[in-house]
Amino acid sequence: MIPRYSRPEMVAIWEPDTKFRIWFEIEAHACEALAELGVIPKEAAKNIRERGDKAVFDVAKIDEIEREVKHDVIAFLTHLAEFIGEDSRFVHQGMTSSDVLDTCFNVQLVRAADIMLKDIDELLAAIKRRAFEHKDTVSIGRSHGIHAEPVTFGLKMAEAYAEFTRCRERLVNARKEVATCAISGAVGTFANIDPRVEEHVAKALGLEPEPVSTQVIPRDRHAMYFATLGVIASSIERVATEIRHLQRTEVLEAEEFFSEGQKGSSAMPHKRNPVLTENLTGLARLVRGMALPAMENVALWHERDISHSSVERMIGPDATVTLDFALARLTGVIDKLLVYPEQMQKNLDRLGGLVHSQRVLLALTQKGASREDAYRLVQRNAMPVWRGEGNFLELLKADKDVSAKLSDAELEDLFDLGYHTKHVDTIFARVFGKEAMAKQGKAAE
Amino acid sequence: MIPRYSRPEMVAIWEPDTKFRIWFEIEAHACEALAELGVIPKEAAKNIRERGDKAVFDVAKIDEIEREVKHDVIAFLTHLAEFIGEDSRFVHQGMTSSDVLDTCFNVQLVRAADIMLKDIDELLAAIKRRAFEHKDTVSIGRSHGIHAEPVTFGLKMAEAYAEFTRCRERLVNARKEVATCAISGAVGTFANIDPRVEEHVAKALGLEPEPVSTQVIPRDRHAMYFATLGVIASSIERVATEIRHLQRTEVLEAEEFFSEGQKGSSAMPHKRNPVLTENLTGLARLVRGMALPAMENVALWHERDISHSSVERMIGPDATVTLDFALARLTGVIDKLLVYPEQMQKNLDRLGGLVHSQRVLLALTQKGASREDAYRLVQRNAMPVWRGEGNFLELLKADKDVSAKLSDAELEDLFDLGYHTKHVDTIFARVFGKEAMAKQGKAAE
Amino acid sequence: MIPRYSRPEMVAIWEPDTKFRIWFEIEAHACEALAELGVIPKEAAKNIRERGDKAVFDVAKIDEIEREVKHDVIAFLTHLAEFIGEDSRFVHQGMTSSDVLDTCFNVQLVRAADIMLKDIDELLAAIKRRAFEHKDTVSIGRSHGIHAEPVTFGLKMAEAYAEFTRCRERLVNARKEVATCAISGAVGTFANIDPRVEEHVAKALGLEPEPVSTQVIPRDRHAMYFATLGVIASSIERVATEIRHLQRTEVLEAEEFFSEGQKGSSAMPHKRNPVLTENLTGLARLVRGMALPAMENVALWHERDISHSSVERMIGPDATVTLDFALARLTGVIDKLLVYPEQMQKNLDRLGGLVHSQRVLLALTQKGASREDAYRLVQRNAMPVWRGEGNFLELLKADKDVSAKLSDAELEDLFDLGYHTKHVDTIFARVFGKEAMAKQGKAAE
Amino acid sequence: MIPRYSRPEMVAIWEPDTKFRIWFEIEAHACEALAELGVIPKEAAKNIRERGDKAVFDVAKIDEIEREVKHDVIAFLTHLAEFIGEDSRFVHQGMTSSDVLDTCFNVQLVRAADIMLKDIDELLAAIKRRAFEHKDTVSIGRSHGIHAEPVTFGLKMAEAYAEFTRCRERLVNARKEVATCAISGAVGTFANIDPRVEEHVAKALGLEPEPVSTQVIPRDRHAMYFATLGVIASSIERVATEIRHLQRTEVLEAEEFFSEGQKGSSAMPHKRNPVLTENLTGLARLVRGMALPAMENVALWHERDISHSSVERMIGPDATVTLDFALARLTGVIDKLLVYPEQMQKNLDRLGGLVHSQRVLLALTQKGASREDAYRLVQRNAMPVWRGEGNFLELLKADKDVSAKLSDAELEDLFDLGYHTKHVDTIFARVFGKEAMAKQGKAAE
Repeated sequence: MIPRYSRPEMVAIWEPDTKFRIWFEIEAHACEALAELGVIPKEAAKNIRERGDKAVFDVAKIDEIEREVKHDVIAFLTHLAEFIGEDSRFVHQGMTSSDVLDTCFNVQLVRAADIMLKDIDELLAAIKRRAFEHKDTVSIGRSHGIHAEPVTFGLKMAEAYAEFTRCRERLVNARKEVATCAISGAVGTFANIDPRVEEHVAKALGLEPEPVSTQVIPRDRHAMYFATLGVIASSIERVATEIRHLQRTEVLEAEEFFSEGQKGSSAMPHKRNPVLTENLTGLARLVRGMALPAMENVALWHERDISHSSVERMIGPDATVTLDFALARLTGVIDKLLVYPEQMQKNLDRLGGLVHSQRVLLALTQKGASREDAYRLVQRNAMPVWRGEGNFLELLKADKDVSAKLSDAELEDLFDLGYHTKHVDTIFARVFGKEAMAKQGKAAE
Repeated sequence: MIPRYSRPEMVAIWEPDTKFRIWFEIEAHACEALAELGVIPKEAAKNIRERGDKAVFDVAKIDEIEREVKHDVIAFLTHLAEFIGEDSRFVHQGMTSSDVLDTCFNVQLVRAADIMLKDIDELLAAIKRRAFEHKDTVSIGRSHGIHAEPVTFGLKMAEAYAEFTRCRERLVNARKEVATCAISGAVGTFANIDPRVEEHVAKALGLEPEPVSTQVIPRDRHAMYFATLGVIASSIERVATEIRHLQRTEVLEAEEFFSEGQKGSSAMPHKRNPVLTENLTGLARLVRGMALPAMENVALWHERDISHSSVERMIGPDATVTLDFALARLTGVIDKLLVYPEQMQKNLDRLGGLVHSQRVLLALTQKGASREDAYRLVQRNAMPVWRGEGNFLELLKADKDVSAKLSDAELEDLFDLGYHTKHVDTIFARVFGKEAMAKQGKAAE
Repeated sequence: MIPRYSRPEMVAIWEPDTKFRIWFEIEAHACEALAELGVIPKEAAKNIRERGDKAVFDVAKIDEIEREVKHDVIAFLTHLAEFIGEDSRFVHQGMTSSDVLDTCFNVQLVRAADIMLKDIDELLAAIKRRAFEHKDTVSIGRSHGIHAEPVTFGLKMAEAYAEFTRCRERLVNARKEVATCAISGAVGTFANIDPRVEEHVAKALGLEPEPVSTQVIPRDRHAMYFATLGVIASSIERVATEIRHLQRTEVLEAEEFFSEGQKGSSAMPHKRNPVLTENLTGLARLVRGMALPAMENVALWHERDISHSSVERMIGPDATVTLDFALARLTGVIDKLLVYPEQMQKNLDRLGGLVHSQRVLLALTQKGASREDAYRLVQRNAMPVWRGEGNFLELLKADKDVSAKLSDAELEDLFDLGYHTKHVDTIFARVFGKEAMAKQGKAAE
Repeated sequence: MIPRYSRPEMVAIWEPDTKFRIWFEIEAHACEALAELGVIPKEAAKNIRERGDKAVFDVAKIDEIEREVKHDVIAFLTHLAEFIGEDSRFVHQGMTSSDVLDTCFNVQLVRAADIMLKDIDELLAAIKRRAFEHKDTVSIGRSHGIHAEPVTFGLKMAEAYAEFTRCRERLVNARKEVATCAISGAVGTFANIDPRVEEHVAKALGLEPEPVSTQVIPRDRHAMYFATLGVIASSIERVATEIRHLQRTEVLEAEEFFSEGQKGSSAMPHKRNPVLTENLTGLARLVRGMALPAMENVALWHERDISHSSVERMIGPDATVTLDFALARLTGVIDKLLVYPEQMQKNLDRLGGLVHSQRVLLALTQKGASREDAYRLVQRNAMPVWRGEGNFLELLKADKDVSAKLSDAELEDLFDLGYHTKHVDTIFARVFGKEAMAKQGKAAE
């Protein structure tokens, strides 16, 4: 987590202030439940809530206490006691530090997921807008980086839309994984605290009670959470890579928005570089790399050890802040992306009609040629075109074995672009739903 | 994937025979749809199906053809044509290799998931049995490897049950991620093939049509699948690590079953080592390590490149075969695990009653001591016991500041084990459901 | 390790036959040392060596024994005893299984490193040949995928040469890391075996004695080995990515060799895809992914556990076989790479002279313009050219603020390509050595 | 990089102040070389050096400029110009941003390596001291967590010493990997800058000139650097895991130092947890996880893209700061580790003499028993002892098949501990050198 790749709302979740406030919430909710159960006086619970609500926690002071006692929760409770007074002895009764730490961490991860879900929604909106804008903007499809057959730029966006729709579902699942609360005491047995306290705190925080905790909330939940962030980061990388490719000098079918005053290179004033999407590629590597330590965190010893803690202190903020930033950055890139339909057409025309080779192949087989013969006929006319020697349609017309099966008119028909885009609407309806298609249709009228 | 860590049913999914059979199924289903749509003759589709069904594919021959044409699907189609005869020209019409390859890969991954779901079910059954068997077998809970407070061995099993229940849900999700079919042609536009063919083939294979494919089925799906396997492997590691710890010479609360004739060490005949769970620890590392290449596979170039292929040829079989084997091995370990309740009791008694320290702490605060004072009182009596000097209960009784607040009888009450296990049934009901508890209760009568 | 990505020489290292033969060598060498020390009879050692040398080990039979005793080394020793007869009781005296297993694994890794060193030498030779062939073949250098300034294709090769020279050094280091032998007994104390046995066996196998082993050879050595393979794989990926980029339809400055009979696409006969380098990209992901399990293997418990074993049974063969294959494949790709200098020139000319922008910038500052002013002047003439509107040189000539500082002749001078290549020989001398340059010069005469 | 796991000296390397100061050094050195070559006036170079040396860079101001121009080096140069005045136009001539950025990054990594080398030296010193202190402190060796045969605590330390000696060598290599400087201009061709400038700057900074750079210094160097840190982190984890095991309640052969005032648990006052070594385990996971993004950084596109930058902005500081902290923490742990020889002896005695089983096995074979018979004889007497039924020596004496071969006196001799430690000095001499042994011997007199 470095300022350069951070957004304030997500950063705030991980501030010490926020953490201590959540800790207090957990303690205060627990006290209320304990009071309700008659374990501690109702007056005490009320007093704790009121004074705590008004307290302004002094992070530096808590840190100072921690340096002495070498225990963060005890340091916090000591500081809290200064505000609460004598009733502070009713705070944290029957609880263990992990009850506070783990529940707090999950609250933070849930809030982080909520921000990222909002990020994805904004990203989806941007993608959708550009998808419909360029639904019919024909461009060459490429496999292996080599021209294949025509697609539309809108289709590329539709693919991104479908992918991030899946990412959204995964994130909803990941959020659910960590939306649990444990207030179960030293080794998770509720020996010193009634399970109803956990239920109360969970409900108050919008979480589910952890069915069975040890001292800690089991870390397979968090492993799944961070693995999911890694997969989402990989999808960001995919779209970023696509844009980087489209912006290449020789391709130049799209370009990241380039603001006035921006300098592409200290040495070469002419350059306009896809630096945002390159940056996203790097950020994806980072987030992905954090999935593994999270998985290694699962196998804690017995009822718990604390090896996961240092990992989470870093990847908790780092992965969420970085992914939040990356999602927002990608939204901006998509939103303002400069798209060049003319250049797309120009590239499409580059291969002298070779993109129609498959259609010719199919037509030949439909006229009775074996697949092998058809392939050979097409390839022998394709190769010169590939080398820049001649036009594919003309060569085919001149090839006697071809013209024996396909007339000139038939061949010309096979070179129609509309043939390739006829199912774009079908695909759009699948991805965006029929309703969106209808609405779009109306808007276009 | 090596024989030592493989089980035949899962291995069979990845055999060339299986693959070619699935390829044929995809082609045959596609032909039937094409015939239905009037694109190819119905007779041809019927002929293809019948002759293909009877065909015995010669893997060596296909390999030989591939060495020449350097294209696996073309090699297969060439071989298939030998069985089909002239109608073979109707096979694969308007399709691209990836339609076959990707749909087949997904069929394999779905089948693999089904086996692993069965594995998890068997694992859950074994865990459940041992959980109820040892629901009330008290053992010491440990945090940081240090004695904390009592739990029961059944609770440890309940935790594993809850964890693998989550793993099961994750695997169901992962299976759904890859249960899609793409028959969309060269760049996914359905230019040369009607989308209804895809719908037909998908249905016939129990898959969903991929809403929008490029040439390939998007690899974020597979990244999520393999990441999920990595998380499941990490949960296996957790349970394996627990058992390794319990089998330590000094702990010896449980042991892997040790068969007659088995030799623990070539040099030391007395040894009984937790080799199965150590092995599981290593297998977990392997499966986990495969999540990252799968994530790197997401960012294919444009409509596709083939960099994912080599990765999947290895991790497809390796991750599923290894995880299947690991799940089955863990089931065996749990099923036959030797559990030593007496040794658990002996370890529990080791710390001279220190495991009750928290209860004393709480009792002191309830009698009016501040948390800080109570902590100090408990700690000053605990430390000598920790050093093996004296019995905790006796020291507390002899401490005047303690006895000023707690009578001997009250102190003795605080040393009751039942206090710690009183909520075991509550937790079991959460994990296994009330029904299971009731049934269990009846069985026990 | 799958046949498709394997080469026989490397595969042979990992065959059971090879392994058992190395095991025998270790045992036989140890016996000879033991005999020399008077621990066992000299006759016995001689007999063991002679009968073992002639023995043909039956892998299936050893496997069968292992299934019973569940211990691989004991199974082997039992089988070996059938050949040796009564003297077999002198075999393995004072040794532990790991002495055999770990020393054998290191022998295998050393042999694997030797093959890979040979691979790298062949790769370097191929790169060097192409480097000198195209030392002066000018092509556009690209940063961010955007045209920057001219380089030569030979320089790209020189970079690859320097990179793989570093890879070679790293591999030499990695080989040294694992070139150790441990014959130190049950927990590494030499309690039951004289350290001189280890020294003898080490020397006989071309290894160093492990200074201090526990039961096992420490796994940080192997972690370093596999991490090194991961870095080498990443360098392969870099060169592969470069070629994939150069083969893009719009760039087409180079192409993988495309053999007669090869089919690029089942659907599109015109396609020539960079499938080998795409494949290398995937293989790099695989090898890289194996570095992490190897690192997790380091922290074995106490004097050893066996969790590393399953990992190494897989990544030992997988990483070395895959990297050997990848290195050889890359050598083939480089060796036969089709290079298109004319297309390079064509691409270079694409940007209407913008590649010279920095030179103009520098010239302006040298004529007294501030850096900021110069940048602005250059950028305002570059932007129209970027948009395809006009020729850079003409625009500069027509810009009064520019022509106030630089005459037409001066501007024209700035557009000379030779300016960019003047230090190619300097760089080549650094990379290939002055001797190679001299030899090359002579050959060219 | 979070304050909790950071030390100021390493953090300082990564402060913006430090970075800008290094940038200035690079520019100033380059100017001096350019002046020497007559490219810029000597007066200008002198002026740049003098004014820059006195300048206090305003990080906030540079950030502000960067927000406008979106280019960090240009922002810095603009700010620098405020101090330098008109001569600033001579700064950065013929250079590209990466010349500054990459050379600076390498300077930082070299400095970081130097700190870590010092860390390792201190760690080695601590380990060595404890090794000699406990050279002859016998403790049980464990394989698979199960008692095997005796070792000494000093041997454990010797193993750690040998391992970190290797880590040191690896770090020296890694430092060398990144100790290069590139001042080669826009695409590394020296078109606009003389190679002698690079040579001069390299020398001035204690670096080697990069033989061939593109625009950037090749990232395989950095991949190797971070992979090496990952391996070192794994060695830290190994030692940390050993200590965590030794501190387990049931083992308790060693303990992390526990300061007055420290609280082990908010709930359980008696606890003394190995939290430092658990923390180290987590930190190891983090550092290890950063190796992969570093490897993914290698395959930059063509002459460079900027995807590596975001990765390095994070892992540059994170990996080095974390590893520095971890090394220092481990040194502290080792230095102050509480070692309990009596408890070691107690654990050693636990298994009723079973640790001598191998010796008995060997003695039986030496008396003529076949290995299989000997194994069976030993095992049948070991198993009851393992179950806590009887003493191994007594059982052996009572076993007629055993006593037929070994007299009581012979058996008793086999139970001597000195047998196991007789080669400790041999091993120490290998690890610490004969000189250290001699010195130690003298000190002991």
